[in-house]
Amino acid sequence: MADYVYGPGRTHLFVPGPVNIPDQVIRAMNRQNEDYRSPAVPALTKLLLEDVKKIFKTTTGTPFMIPTTGTGAWESALTNTLSPGDRVVSFLIGQFSLLWIDQQQRLGFDVDVVESEWGRGADLDALESKLRADTLHTIKAIAIVHNETATGVTNNLATVRKLLDTYGHPALLLVDGVSSICALDFRMDEWGVDVALTGSQKALSLPTGLGILCASPKALEASKTAKSVRVFFDWKDYLKSYKIGNYWPYTPSIQLLYGLRTALDLIFEEGLDNVIKRHTRLATATRCSASLAVEAWGLKNCCQKEEWFSDTVTAIVVPPYIDSNDIVKHAWKRYNLSLGLGLNKVAGKVFRIGHLGNLNELQLLGCLSGVEMVLKDVGYPVKLGSGVAAAAAYLSNFTPLIPSRI
Amino acid sequence: MADYVYGPGRTHLFVPGPVNIPDQVIRAMNRQNEDYRSPAVPALTKLLLEDVKKIFKTTTGTPFMIPTTGTGAWESALTNTLSPGDRVVSFLIGQFSLLWIDQQQRLGFDVDVVESEWGRGADLDALESKLRADTLHTIKAIAIVHNETATGVTNNLATVRKLLDTYGHPALLLVDGVSSICALDFRMDEWGVDVALTGSQKALSLPTGLGILCASPKALEASKTAKSVRVFFDWKDYLKSYKIGNYWPYTPSIQLLYGLRTALDLIFEEGLDNVIKRHTRLATATRCSASLAVEAWGLKNCCQKEEWFSDTVTAIVVPPYIDSNDIVKHAWKRYNLSLGLGLNKVAGKVFRIGHLGNLNELQLLGCLSGVEMVLKDVGYPVKLGSGVAAAAAYLSNFTPLIPSRI
Amino acid sequence: MADYVYGPGRTHLFVPGPVNIPDQVIRAMNRQNEDYRSPAVPALTKLLLEDVKKIFKTTTGTPFMIPTTGTGAWESALTNTLSPGDRVVSFLIGQFSLLWIDQQQRLGFDVDVVESEWGRGADLDALESKLRADTLHTIKAIAIVHNETATGVTNNLATVRKLLDTYGHPALLLVDGVSSICALDFRMDEWGVDVALTGSQKALSLPTGLGILCASPKALEASKTAKSVRVFFDWKDYLKSYKIGNYWPYTPSIQLLYGLRTALDLIFEEGLDNVIKRHTRLATATRCSASLAVEAWGLKNCCQKEEWFSDTVTAIVVPPYIDSNDIVKHAWKRYNLSLGLGLNKVAGKVFRIGHLGNLNELQLLGCLSGVEMVLKDVGYPVKLGSGVAAAAAYLSNFTPLIPSRI
Amino acid sequence: MADYVYGPGRTHLFVPGPVNIPDQVIRAMNRQNEDYRSPAVPALTKLLLEDVKKIFKTTTGTPFMIPTTGTGAWESALTNTLSPGDRVVSFLIGQFSLLWIDQQQRLGFDVDVVESEWGRGADLDALESKLRADTLHTIKAIAIVHNETATGVTNNLATVRKLLDTYGHPALLLVDGVSSICALDFRMDEWGVDVALTGSQKALSLPTGLGILCASPKALEASKTAKSVRVFFDWKDYLKSYKIGNYWPYTPSIQLLYGLRTALDLIFEEGLDNVIKRHTRLATATRCSASLAVEAWGLKNCCQKEEWFSDTVTAIVVPPYIDSNDIVKHAWKRYNLSLGLGLNKVAGKVFRIGHLGNLNELQLLGCLSGVEMVLKDVGYPVKLGSGVAAAAAYLSNFTPLIPSRI
Repeated sequence: MADYVYGPGRTHLFVPGPVNIPDQVIRAMNRQNEDYRSPAVPALTKLLLEDVKKIFKTTTGTPFMIPTTGTGAWESALTNTLSPGDRVVSFLIGQFSLLWIDQQQRLGFDVDVVESEWGRGADLDALESKLRADTLHTIKAIAIVHNETATGVTNNLATVRKLLDTYGHPALLLVDGVSSICALDFRMDEWGVDVALTGSQKALSLPTGLGILCASPKALEASKTAKSVRVFFDWKDYLKSYKIGNYWPYTPSIQLLYGLRTALDLIFEEGLDNVIKRHTRLATATRCSASLAVEAWGLKNCCQKEEWFSDTVTAIVVPPYIDSNDIVKHAWKRYNLSLGLGLNKVAGKVFRIGHLGNLNELQLLGCLSGVEMVLKDVGYPVKLGSGVAAAAAYLSNFTPLIPSRI
Repeated sequence: MADYVYGPGRTHLFVPGPVNIPDQVIRAMNRQNEDYRSPAVPALTKLLLEDVKKIFKTTTGTPFMIPTTGTGAWESALTNTLSPGDRVVSFLIGQFSLLWIDQQQRLGFDVDVVESEWGRGADLDALESKLRADTLHTIKAIAIVHNETATGVTNNLATVRKLLDTYGHPALLLVDGVSSICALDFRMDEWGVDVALTGSQKALSLPTGLGILCASPKALEASKTAKSVRVFFDWKDYLKSYKIGNYWPYTPSIQLLYGLRTALDLIFEEGLDNVIKRHTRLATATRCSASLAVEAWGLKNCCQKEEWFSDTVTAIVVPPYIDSNDIVKHAWKRYNLSLGLGLNKVAGKVFRIGHLGNLNELQLLGCLSGVEMVLKDVGYPVKLGSGVAAAAAYLSNFTPLIPSRI
Repeated sequence: MADYVYGPGRTHLFVPGPVNIPDQVIRAMNRQNEDYRSPAVPALTKLLLEDVKKIFKTTTGTPFMIPTTGTGAWESALTNTLSPGDRVVSFLIGQFSLLWIDQQQRLGFDVDVVESEWGRGADLDALESKLRADTLHTIKAIAIVHNETATGVTNNLATVRKLLDTYGHPALLLVDGVSSICALDFRMDEWGVDVALTGSQKALSLPTGLGILCASPKALEASKTAKSVRVFFDWKDYLKSYKIGNYWPYTPSIQLLYGLRTALDLIFEEGLDNVIKRHTRLATATRCSASLAVEAWGLKNCCQKEEWFSDTVTAIVVPPYIDSNDIVKHAWKRYNLSLGLGLNKVAGKVFRIGHLGNLNELQLLGCLSGVEMVLKDVGYPVKLGSGVAAAAAYLSNFTPLIPSRI
Repeated sequence: MADYVYGPGRTHLFVPGPVNIPDQVIRAMNRQNEDYRSPAVPALTKLLLEDVKKIFKTTTGTPFMIPTTGTGAWESALTNTLSPGDRVVSFLIGQFSLLWIDQQQRLGFDVDVVESEWGRGADLDALESKLRADTLHTIKAIAIVHNETATGVTNNLATVRKLLDTYGHPALLLVDGVSSICALDFRMDEWGVDVALTGSQKALSLPTGLGILCASPKALEASKTAKSVRVFFDWKDYLKSYKIGNYWPYTPSIQLLYGLRTALDLIFEEGLDNVIKRHTRLATATRCSASLAVEAWGLKNCCQKEEWFSDTVTAIVVPPYIDSNDIVKHAWKRYNLSLGLGLNKVAGKVFRIGHLGNLNELQLLGCLSGVEMVLKDVGYPVKLGSGVAAAAAYLSNFTPLIPSRI
């Protein structure tokens, strides 16, 4: 059963999560369970918590690693800082921000939805108006995705912070960094983010299973009075465990802890800034393939402006006569290539290339070759090799030597 | 770092969770991430959901596999079936029932706590009184642990059902089967359990990461009107995914799915009833070691009556002049043996031997030998070999040949 | 230490051995040792021996799996069938045939070396002359590599057999199939091969460690009188073990046996003929990249004639102003790409792309993109994308859907 | 198929090879193939060669790691140092020395077999007579197993050296250390051993696949003139590779190299002398179980004298009315316990407990419990718990704390 879909060779995994796990991490996770109340697991956890802060670029934040997914991490961020009825400004720019807003509403917050066309970034002008108008500080939080995975759009968090500061607004800044942290430039402390969160199966390149959050001192303070009902996602139980020194209010996945240890080791060995540069490089190469009018495929990026271009996922708009679902299906059926579907409003209209996590140049070029062949298969008049050539031209100029091999 | 506690040979893992993972399952989980929106993962999930019902012994229940721990599964069971302020009868008989009650209270239910001495089962006489008195059916749910992991006490669920039936009481029966399901005799349909739940790291012998629940038709019905705030734990999103056929409202752990596939295969190959018999056998052998006055150690079982003896974990009371924490520490430091600590009220007073999950006779006898040596080390006048002899005498009579090797 | 050469993403392994291991096989090998005298290992071995014959396309051959490498398998083939001083006709066409001839000489045979220019196939005209002249049948064996891994040249075994038949010559036909069997069309019985051999780390896509041979009835007969000194490589000890039913005269690698089981399962699932077609397809695509004058790189294939083109490895001649060693070094240092060096006479003059084993289209295209970028880096005026385009054009026409996914 | 013999829980592996692999080593081996001509593999190999010398306790020896088994390592030791017809004194004391002698004879040496009763050590008085008589130095080598795995007998190599020195005899001292090196006290330099060898699947606790030898300067010198025909096992090709710096004349198993790296790391972390002490401790405990007249089983050690007791394997003589094969079969069928069979002369008469490699106290006690139950099952009047008690009494006094956990 498990392998009824066997195809020869490697599966080319280019969905924007879960992403490719490094062999080193798979190896580290290849292990038995352990007593999580032994001296070893708390000692391991303690160091992990310290190191996790580095990928959020925070020294003042308090990290939480919760056995859950991104959706659970969202819920933890909201319920620990807000009370039912609290006013939240939230930006709808694609499927994942939509789902988060849905959660916010179901959790009982008064959500002020600022909608943009899918393919555009958060409407920060609207935010400015709202902040300017909100002299009574009824807005308790701004909830924003750093990177909208459905459309390949990255929001400008520095500007959000600047607006809050400009208007001296005390609203909490809650950031979904699920498809950004550890891949895009993310600066929790510098940007004054109050809660930032990610999931293990994204740029950290682990299996699903850990929702990782960092809370600012202000967010921690808010958690003391927030009235949202919560138990599993309650930071209080973690803080108690940290104080006691056993670090876990309930059973963690031993395998994920050791996996995270190795994942962080690899990231630090490469250098977080180099990891981010690598993401920019691969993303730029992907865009070279996709959208240069003549040399390459001539397809449109779903993301409408360069300032929002995402370096972790590119959503590519197909011509109306093509169903993007066919591209995804065909890629998998013929070339063992996993691409991302278009979701909701852009279903059938875009397909997505996830280029985040543990990935390198030749893997991407293999993927781009595959996309070309699939485009041809579904009837798009692509010139085979054109996208790969454009990407290679870029990569050939900007790829550094592997430092450990010089 | 990861191995700073290296000791030669195998770690003997006898905590009552997380438990020993079969090599076959570790192997099955040794894998890359996959696109969970491909045709493969939903097909796999569909079969898993069918097969999971078998270990709950239900044909009418609806299964949910949530990326969480037992604590999250508790929360899912409660919030999907109850509304804030609902009256719940709950039994406090040890640390885990205590924690569940704490959760019930924090979630806003009106909890009617029925307390027993730690080491005794749920007070079903008290339950009977309450049911008899509750002619207005103000009690919305009975919440009960099938097996209290802290004291090694198993509650009699058949009797609970009988009482509900006797009084024609419509309260929902919510059962924590975390340390019972797949190890003890558990009959969801026969006992009219409305929600039953377990965690992957217990008798299923997987890593932590899946909270698995089954809901009766009545519980599903209740979920339509239950007003508890919930999103991540909401069954509704799963039911929608089942209908659509993608089976997952958010990203599952690919590795755990394949692991669960193999874990179930092994259980079915052995036969669920044989698995349960094996647990009874190993538990009985453990009790032979611990408590036979002359032949063996002469220590008391924390569980006060035979009718409550747990077949998944035995909590053993040490004499007042010994600190049970020393036993656990010493076992780990000298013999690479992980035992369970005494928790809360019985901290320092009991240590626990978990004998659930993928385990066999000689593993247990190795553990019992270790316990003996540790007891001697901490000053208890044990006769080395006595407990092992008692256990072996039992096992030697009752262990069947391995069917596949006959 | 082990990872001091860490680079992000996957290593692109395109040496002609050891080759990429399928994840399924890595998983199957992720296991403990076992008693090889238990009932399980002989039962497993018995089936493996039966199944191994299929990849040699023999029903009359007797298989041997020896814990050794290809070099050891060579030695086993020779010493079991020949006596010191025996006359052997052997073809020198590259580094590996050279090494085998060196072995033949050191083992004391009277080797009649038939040399060809490196890049050409075995000189079968010379063979014909020798056979015609050898009316006294002094030639005891013809030793020939099916595929010369150093130059990417495949010899025509059918013709060799035809010549032997034409002249009614009884010489044994000993074939090195190390880089051919399970990748190229190989027909032991039809071609009257007397000993054929391969190594586990080649097209079988396993780790190194098993030398696998098949001996024809005639070869087995010869082994009864062959006087070459041998013990470890002696078939006699195996034949005795087969008769006894324990199947192993000395300890096998348990891990490799289970790995081989899975490797064969995957090959049979794909279909051996489909595996061979896939090799032809990937090899043709590689050649499209390399040698089409205008569209692609314009580099020469080391193999001089199409009839000898190897479908498992392509050796590509670089212009005199480039050192092919630099290509290999640079590919590894910048793109995490492992290519094959030029060896001996063609050192510095060729680099090699191994395209055998568990590999698919997009992996190859990623490799070809990498080769292009490296060519550019070392100063060759390649047009980026040209080779990939040529390969993709071919693959796009000839790649079938993955059968299990249709 | 692979798991048609599935039994719940862990397999208790107590054959004297292949032995239990540490989880850390399994993890390290869980990996892809790599180009063995890259800079990484030679660098890794170079360090391994240095470190391997430590387990032989040699600083002057030259190590060889050959992709073969112990049988191949034997052949390499002999053929590199001797010429056909050379006189070798060899000691027949059990099945493995018998097999080595058989090999020596088949390789064409003039073997002077000194036979002892199975269960006794090498007859060193006979050796002394021979050395004394051999004033012309016709004896070219003494070939001796350090530890006879079939009977659990350890020979005294220090005495052999002393005899050679006493008589100023220049014969080479060739030692089979397959079941001793890395477990028993072995001192290549101090004892003037000329060739010592072991296999990866023994005390090094790896899978089968590496024959590891060390050659003294004198042995290396001898290899220059030794006339035995050899290629695969020829040290010359290795020495050439060492000089070139690529370290491998043919393809090694990448997985075994990384496994060996970790195996050595673990041994050095524990401390080689502590590893040896642990073997003594576990062996003594086994003997306590087996042979103390009243307290324990009352069975005889096949090894007749304490001075020869092996610390890696104990062969236990069963009463005539019991077939020891039944014990082995039954242990596997009922308790998932793998014991060693009696071989050849002692077939049916002894069973063997291998207690070498990565093993600890509680694993051994589990095994001993199992042996007791099996003895009872086959009709031996064992007092259950008696052997375990005797072993535990010893272990309880002599087992140190795990250093990393103090």
